[in-house]
Amino acid sequence: MLDPADWEKFRALAHRAVEDAVDFMRDVRERAVWEPVPEQVKAALRAAMPEEGTSLEEVYREFRETILPYATGNVHPRFWGWVHGSGTPAGAIAEFLAAVMNSNVGGRDHGAVYVERQVIRWFCDLFGWPSDAAGILVTGTSTANLLAVLVARTGALGRAVRERGLSQAEQLVGYASAATHACVRKAFESAGLGSQHLRVLPVDHAHRLDPVRVARAVAEDRRQGLRPFLLVGNAGTVDAGAIDPLDRLADLASEEGLWFHVDGAFGAAAYLSPQLRPKLRGIERADSIAFDFHKWLQAPYDAGCVLVRDGEMQRATFASEGPYITRMERGLAAGEPWFADYGPDLSRGFRALKVWFTIKTHGTAALARAIERNCEQARDLQALLERSGVFEIVAPVELQIVCFRPSISGLPPHTLDEITDECAVRLQESGEAVISSTTISGRRAMRACITNHRTTSADLDALVETLERITPEVLRDLRPR
Amino acid sequence: MLDPADWEKFRALAHRAVEDAVDFMRDVRERAVWEPVPEQVKAALRAAMPEEGTSLEEVYREFRETILPYATGNVHPRFWGWVHGSGTPAGAIAEFLAAVMNSNVGGRDHGAVYVERQVIRWFCDLFGWPSDAAGILVTGTSTANLLAVLVARTGALGRAVRERGLSQAEQLVGYASAATHACVRKAFESAGLGSQHLRVLPVDHAHRLDPVRVARAVAEDRRQGLRPFLLVGNAGTVDAGAIDPLDRLADLASEEGLWFHVDGAFGAAAYLSPQLRPKLRGIERADSIAFDFHKWLQAPYDAGCVLVRDGEMQRATFASEGPYITRMERGLAAGEPWFADYGPDLSRGFRALKVWFTIKTHGTAALARAIERNCEQARDLQALLERSGVFEIVAPVELQIVCFRPSISGLPPHTLDEITDECAVRLQESGEAVISSTTISGRRAMRACITNHRTTSADLDALVETLERITPEVLRDLRPR
Repeated sequence: MLDPADWEKFRALAHRAVEDAVDFMRDVRERAVWEPVPEQVKAALRAAMPEEGTSLEEVYREFRETILPYATGNVHPRFWGWVHGSGTPAGAIAEFLAAVMNSNVGGRDHGAVYVERQVIRWFCDLFGWPSDAAGILVTGTSTANLLAVLVARTGALGRAVRERGLSQAEQLVGYASAATHACVRKAFESAGLGSQHLRVLPVDHAHRLDPVRVARAVAEDRRQGLRPFLLVGNAGTVDAGAIDPLDRLADLASEEGLWFHVDGAFGAAAYLSPQLRPKLRGIERADSIAFDFHKWLQAPYDAGCVLVRDGEMQRATFASEGPYITRMERGLAAGEPWFADYGPDLSRGFRALKVWFTIKTHGTAALARAIERNCEQARDLQALLERSGVFEIVAPVELQIVCFRPSISGLPPHTLDEITDECAVRLQESGEAVISSTTISGRRAMRACITNHRTTSADLDALVETLERITPEVLRDLRPR
Repeated sequence: MLDPADWEKFRALAHRAVEDAVDFMRDVRERAVWEPVPEQVKAALRAAMPEEGTSLEEVYREFRETILPYATGNVHPRFWGWVHGSGTPAGAIAEFLAAVMNSNVGGRDHGAVYVERQVIRWFCDLFGWPSDAAGILVTGTSTANLLAVLVARTGALGRAVRERGLSQAEQLVGYASAATHACVRKAFESAGLGSQHLRVLPVDHAHRLDPVRVARAVAEDRRQGLRPFLLVGNAGTVDAGAIDPLDRLADLASEEGLWFHVDGAFGAAAYLSPQLRPKLRGIERADSIAFDFHKWLQAPYDAGCVLVRDGEMQRATFASEGPYITRMERGLAAGEPWFADYGPDLSRGFRALKVWFTIKTHGTAALARAIERNCEQARDLQALLERSGVFEIVAPVELQIVCFRPSISGLPPHTLDEITDECAVRLQESGEAVISSTTISGRRAMRACITNHRTTSADLDALVETLERITPEVLRDLRPR
């Protein structure tokens, strides 16, 4: 009833969308990286819900004119803001095909289930995990971290915590570095553990967690009658891309009986590279790993993953029963285990397909090479910035992130902070490139995160040139008179 | 670097995918509704992660031959299992375009953000909610219910619960009917409240929650020193499609100071229909509503939503800070409020686009008409089954769900249960139609859930005919000798 009255007309529209999409992807360099959404577009997007439909052709036209031009910009070769993947054409085709199939991958016995299982097995194998390890695809690492915290909670308190809740339970305490992403704190909040029970420990000069500090904090918490249960290591911190000493953290977790979770949102992907893998040594000893496909593995948004070494513990955390989801031995209700038993959702999209297409099409060698190249580019950018004399590097370049600020003496710190942020904003407004900004050791910094397979050396040259032009202008405008 | 070396070759592949996809959607009637995944396909989908890539053409060929034919089946006009939407061609195009843009809708200032805001505003307006109401698109109602429980938890315990956790907090208690979906129990578990503190109250003959029972349970819990905080009403129960007396539950929640949440996974969509809206009276008085776009609103998987009347409470539950996500007044880091502050995820796909395309293309009148038609079809199916003399209806048909079983006297209950389940399995195996099964009043039942805009009267005639053929065969095979 909602199908096209004229399939040939629909077919023509779909072909037209392909034409425009291919041009959009191919010609990305010719556009500004980002431009603000015009006020008249914002106004148009405040229109009321329409009672009557509009032809798909007309809806598509509106999309093409008012939405498509105002993408986030992360498909552009000169986008290096936050940690954004840049997507691939193969991934976009896969997403279309997944929507055509419209599979619900919460469970049951059909093709999509086997594709997601394969993707999860690929990554369990990558880390050398046993066959009873498990995992699930989710929206992203924020949710993956939440799931890991919930599984670790089951590990500490037993399955009964599901029925009893936390009000009578021992107070669990977790440990992570100050460089850890805020979503781990949010996970503690959602899980009812309380973010004050995530001990946020200071980092060393290279933004890494010191296992000795963790050991001391654990001992102190035990003395207080609390229950240490979880140690979170970072494989790539969000600000600077630092990697905690995962092998030593794994030792400590083992000695102290802590669940060892690694947040590898982008960094875990570097494990695909034989060259970069030594940096991540110890990640394979984790009890759980969270990472994204939509960052350094370039699948379209959104797709993340949590892997759990003890698959049964994951199942014990989420499996639930309902008469309407009774499993059968045959038919569509067969296919145990169901993914619904490994996470919060009973209805789940087929996000595994875009991952499958990405990895099959490119292979791990090319994906690893793209990751290595981004790391080389970060070192090149560091050298360019140092050579320019206008900027100073403010954090070690461990992977693909370069944090820097204008090197100007004699300014009050808050003025230099304002200048730094303003440089990032004006760069974005210029449309030439996008980087974001953050705080490093209490001071604002610009941050270029090169998680982008389209970036070339020339793009980084252009970045430095543009910044060399913008920075004196900002300085002139913001320097106290 | 991961872009096609030859864009024209990629363009040709994309057009070919469109050709196949349009044929797949147009010719859906000619295929079996579902068929099991062959063992050789399962084996192929156990291959190791490839180091070297394969041409996109070859990957696509493998997809077309081994994955596409084994879809869940819910795109087929004779799929009525569980509660599955059937998708639309417009939605599939939108999903492709979203992947091409590859927007990250966690926040920032770009087009996708305004589209999602518009979609949320549409549904807040539908329920007549104030301008400071909020909401967020999520994977589905399971997650939407979890978010609502977390917001209600903040409402009861204050923002400090995020830091402090639950171990020293008052024990919160919630109330819902026995017909409530298991994901609400899971939400209590994940939130650390404990599923034993969700009071699961018996339903009446029409599967509805009696407010008097809730009032008694609340009084008893208060006597015990517990803290009643949440009442969950159903707008369409999963088994039978029953609607709780939402208006009376809203009264009670107001009198008792409870957060009133409505799980309207599929049923909330019926509010679009002026004809069906009276059945849902009271839903608009909820403090929060969870529902899916991928069920009765026919967007491709996955897309759900939670709406929260007090938007500030939602923000107080999820907003978090990190130096790397500092908001700016200009540039790409502007655009407050960010969706990341209204849910768990900082990286979020552009799932609003498929909803926007669906609603703009069809309009609410046609979507409502499709919903009404499904309800009429359920009543027609009820009549057909009753007339056949082979089946009995075992739950009132309130919306689009018909629960029934073979009407055979003199059999032990467990034998009749086995026969009932076997009928559903054999129907699935026949490829003629898919329905699922459940338990109604302690006995197994077949369940046809017509959340399908492609279904015609002839499809329902065919269902009954096939069941009339299968049931005697099953009876012959399973009847005790």
